[in-house]
Amino acid sequence: MAVRGPLSRLFRSALSACQQSRAHSVAIVGAPFSKGQKRRGVEVGPKAIRDAGLVERLRSLENAVHDFGDLSFEHLEEDDRFMNVPFPRTVGRANEILSEAISTAVGAGNTAVMLGGDHSLAIGSVAGHAQQRPDLCLIWVDAHADINTPMTSPSGNLHGQPVAFMLKELQDKMPAVPGFSWMKPFLSAKDLVYIGLRDVDPGEHVILKNLGIQCFSMRDIDRMGMQRVMEVTLDHLLARKQRPIHLSFDIDAFDPSLAPATGTPVNGGLTYREGIYITEEIHNTGLLSAMDLVEVNPALGASTEAVEATAALAVDVIASSLGQTREAARHRTARPVEPRLLRPATRT
Amino acid sequence: MAVRGPLSRLFRSALSACQQSRAHSVAIVGAPFSKGQKRRGVEVGPKAIRDAGLVERLRSLENAVHDFGDLSFEHLEEDDRFMNVPFPRTVGRANEILSEAISTAVGAGNTAVMLGGDHSLAIGSVAGHAQQRPDLCLIWVDAHADINTPMTSPSGNLHGQPVAFMLKELQDKMPAVPGFSWMKPFLSAKDLVYIGLRDVDPGEHVILKNLGIQCFSMRDIDRMGMQRVMEVTLDHLLARKQRPIHLSFDIDAFDPSLAPATGTPVNGGLTYREGIYITEEIHNTGLLSAMDLVEVNPALGASTEAVEATAALAVDVIASSLGQTREAARHRTARPVEPRLLRPATRT
Amino acid sequence: MAVRGPLSRLFRSALSACQQSRAHSVAIVGAPFSKGQKRRGVEVGPKAIRDAGLVERLRSLENAVHDFGDLSFEHLEEDDRFMNVPFPRTVGRANEILSEAISTAVGAGNTAVMLGGDHSLAIGSVAGHAQQRPDLCLIWVDAHADINTPMTSPSGNLHGQPVAFMLKELQDKMPAVPGFSWMKPFLSAKDLVYIGLRDVDPGEHVILKNLGIQCFSMRDIDRMGMQRVMEVTLDHLLARKQRPIHLSFDIDAFDPSLAPATGTPVNGGLTYREGIYITEEIHNTGLLSAMDLVEVNPALGASTEAVEATAALAVDVIASSLGQTREAARHRTARPVEPRLLRPATRT
Repeated sequence: MAVRGPLSRLFRSALSACQQSRAHSVAIVGAPFSKGQKRRGVEVGPKAIRDAGLVERLRSLENAVHDFGDLSFEHLEEDDRFMNVPFPRTVGRANEILSEAISTAVGAGNTAVMLGGDHSLAIGSVAGHAQQRPDLCLIWVDAHADINTPMTSPSGNLHGQPVAFMLKELQDKMPAVPGFSWMKPFLSAKDLVYIGLRDVDPGEHVILKNLGIQCFSMRDIDRMGMQRVMEVTLDHLLARKQRPIHLSFDIDAFDPSLAPATGTPVNGGLTYREGIYITEEIHNTGLLSAMDLVEVNPALGASTEAVEATAALAVDVIASSLGQTREAARHRTARPVEPRLLRPATRT
Repeated sequence: MAVRGPLSRLFRSALSACQQSRAHSVAIVGAPFSKGQKRRGVEVGPKAIRDAGLVERLRSLENAVHDFGDLSFEHLEEDDRFMNVPFPRTVGRANEILSEAISTAVGAGNTAVMLGGDHSLAIGSVAGHAQQRPDLCLIWVDAHADINTPMTSPSGNLHGQPVAFMLKELQDKMPAVPGFSWMKPFLSAKDLVYIGLRDVDPGEHVILKNLGIQCFSMRDIDRMGMQRVMEVTLDHLLARKQRPIHLSFDIDAFDPSLAPATGTPVNGGLTYREGIYITEEIHNTGLLSAMDLVEVNPALGASTEAVEATAALAVDVIASSLGQTREAARHRTARPVEPRLLRPATRT
Repeated sequence: MAVRGPLSRLFRSALSACQQSRAHSVAIVGAPFSKGQKRRGVEVGPKAIRDAGLVERLRSLENAVHDFGDLSFEHLEEDDRFMNVPFPRTVGRANEILSEAISTAVGAGNTAVMLGGDHSLAIGSVAGHAQQRPDLCLIWVDAHADINTPMTSPSGNLHGQPVAFMLKELQDKMPAVPGFSWMKPFLSAKDLVYIGLRDVDPGEHVILKNLGIQCFSMRDIDRMGMQRVMEVTLDHLLARKQRPIHLSFDIDAFDPSLAPATGTPVNGGLTYREGIYITEEIHNTGLLSAMDLVEVNPALGASTEAVEATAALAVDVIASSLGQTREAARHRTARPVEPRLLRPATRT
């Protein structure tokens, strides 16, 4: 068997496949914000994820990485509760700032990576993305549906309501929350898929059923297996046409044993391998255009190890979304292997 | 899309479905008993499970909950070993008392929940249930088959023998164990299914094979997946006719990493999600009529956390058997959502 | 139903099946060697695995067990680095010694169990096995492919290169590494299957693809399920003809949460149940002829518990390969159950 020729050829084609179709120009946008919920600490999430080696990891995957640092958000003094929603104007303004940043990043040809912060930030992130790519679809990986309205929300926290702000079908169910006049609903219910749900509020359940939103609860995952869940998800969103994907990944989708440092953990979550499989499949579409990684809260880990494990998991999720694979070269290899190394050794 | 009407209607029908077909009148019976095996502490199981919030959780699921407290068991002084079986009369008498309590509870229209205690208590629990519902079938979720006879048992402990007391087919294999003259075998081998087996004694193996009992070992679960296991289980028991289900759940069915505070842990057990899936499927039949949750032993956890995790898991198993779901409203919402909350907001 | 006759008969046939087709004559060979990589401590692996009760466990499975103790390896003084490979002559000589021991053990009719030590030892173990059984096939369970050549290896460590020494197809890619003149490549790429890969170097990826080696990465396992993976594996290797299996099991195939005491852990590994399923399936072929259990490194556990858990897992893997089952009698029962115990009790 003459391996020399084919080996070299295969290697070059593998390398170029990697450099051409797989590599992203990545724009990282930190969003150190926590006013969408009540537990402080989640505003340190972007720092924890960066400290876990995000930028180096993404670079090792042949991506061009631009870290735009953290956005500056203001805490508005005059910000009375609206219905039972705390800090509506502060959350609204932060999302407005974020939406501009994401819109700029995506408009410049980057795959945007938003580091939260709490999940209320998805309003600005997805809205900014949609400004550039109005035909986007949304994959929401989370223990929670985050689709309460101010009227159904048991807590009032906006991190449990972002999807309700996005959906056209809920427009006439939503009050005019102060701070959100800059945006209008932009997403159709049919362009959204949930994965990982296991703690859905009663009002949310009604909304999900009524709008016929495609949901994969943990029970569905147990029943179908993740392989089939991803098949149906991508078919649902992409069968009619290829279009940009926004992935909004709440770290609490994972089981609390894997991601303990988060604000609203729920037992029975995704395994490490299921989470990675989701992101591999999304990467493999070649259509990922922006993503959020939210709700890493370093103040809530029981130990340094717990916090570091949660942040490292966040890095793995982002890296796997952007080309890290379990089947070939991994990040550790700083230097690429040169074809000459695969030439036969001299045996005199 | 006019959501108002359908939303309200769907919600009312969801609520009423929940209140009508799903809600149980639950009778909790504590059985603080440990003489079916040698490790003390398991008699504190009922207290640990209640302290983990069982009653509140079941009430939040719209169930009517009656906690009948703990039964009083006597330790009989004159209770010599029979063959290698310790405390036969004490175990027999406890089960007689328990069977009366369960029979009364079921007879009054309740779904009985027996909190053990060791698994020898299933003799009384299932016997009492069968007194009211002689056509019941039995789903035994456990790492062990608990089907030794006094002649095959390596340890002699009665918590490894309860099923042998129940089965008609083993009647002529069973000696007249003192303390059990109040009962007769009442169950056919075909009306029993095991799930989770992974530590089966040689004599048990012979009995299981010979009687053709439907068993799903962990290897079978690995091979078939839990979705299929439950499909076959329910088909095996219910295909010919709908009838009451008795679920006897030993906490050691779970992996020891999830349920460490138990007497005979065996590696390679059920995941959290598999255990919840089993109970969801049983709940969904609408046929659960009584259940046991046994072998939580607070004296055996390596830490307070280990004990609390085991007791919390027991609460999850019971709650999931009685209507807690991963797909809709969960327990945390004390107040039900009122339909008016789903009305459109006023937008002047 | 008259159970007496069939019960006895079934039991006898079960017992004899166990004693005839399942029981092995097992030869344990300890290989306390660590020069194939840089982290010291892995040379204590054989002791840790024995201390976890290996011999007693294998004996309880009706196997005849011969523990040949630990081999003696020399550290050669004159052993300059070859290319970037450290200790080539020391590793080569150790493998030469090991290959003779394994060849002798297998030649005498034993199933050989090699306890590592680092995975470079597979060179000697598989080579020695192949000396007696040149038609063997190889199942490599590992997070890593260990198929680098000295030219492609990022680290130079020989524990990442053993498979490259074995494969005939790589003969002309391999330099003449000092210390290995005693051996020649003996295995065809088609006679090798990998299971568990998730950290493959770029050069390895090219080799695997180019030689068309059957690989099941963790992603493949996620996609297909372990049941199907084993079906395809055994079909690939055994469909044309039954032949001896060599199982080379690196403990780092398991998830680091299960096997923390090892040198190159990678997240997202096998579950306990997947590892046991692999070995059960291999045992069930009746064709296991030799196996390695490598890379248990007691110096790398964060705690005594971590080390003991890793060593206990190694014992479970070996025991399951050699007849321990989750469906019937387990090891704990020292004394076999005698048929008379299943006779009906006297009931006067």
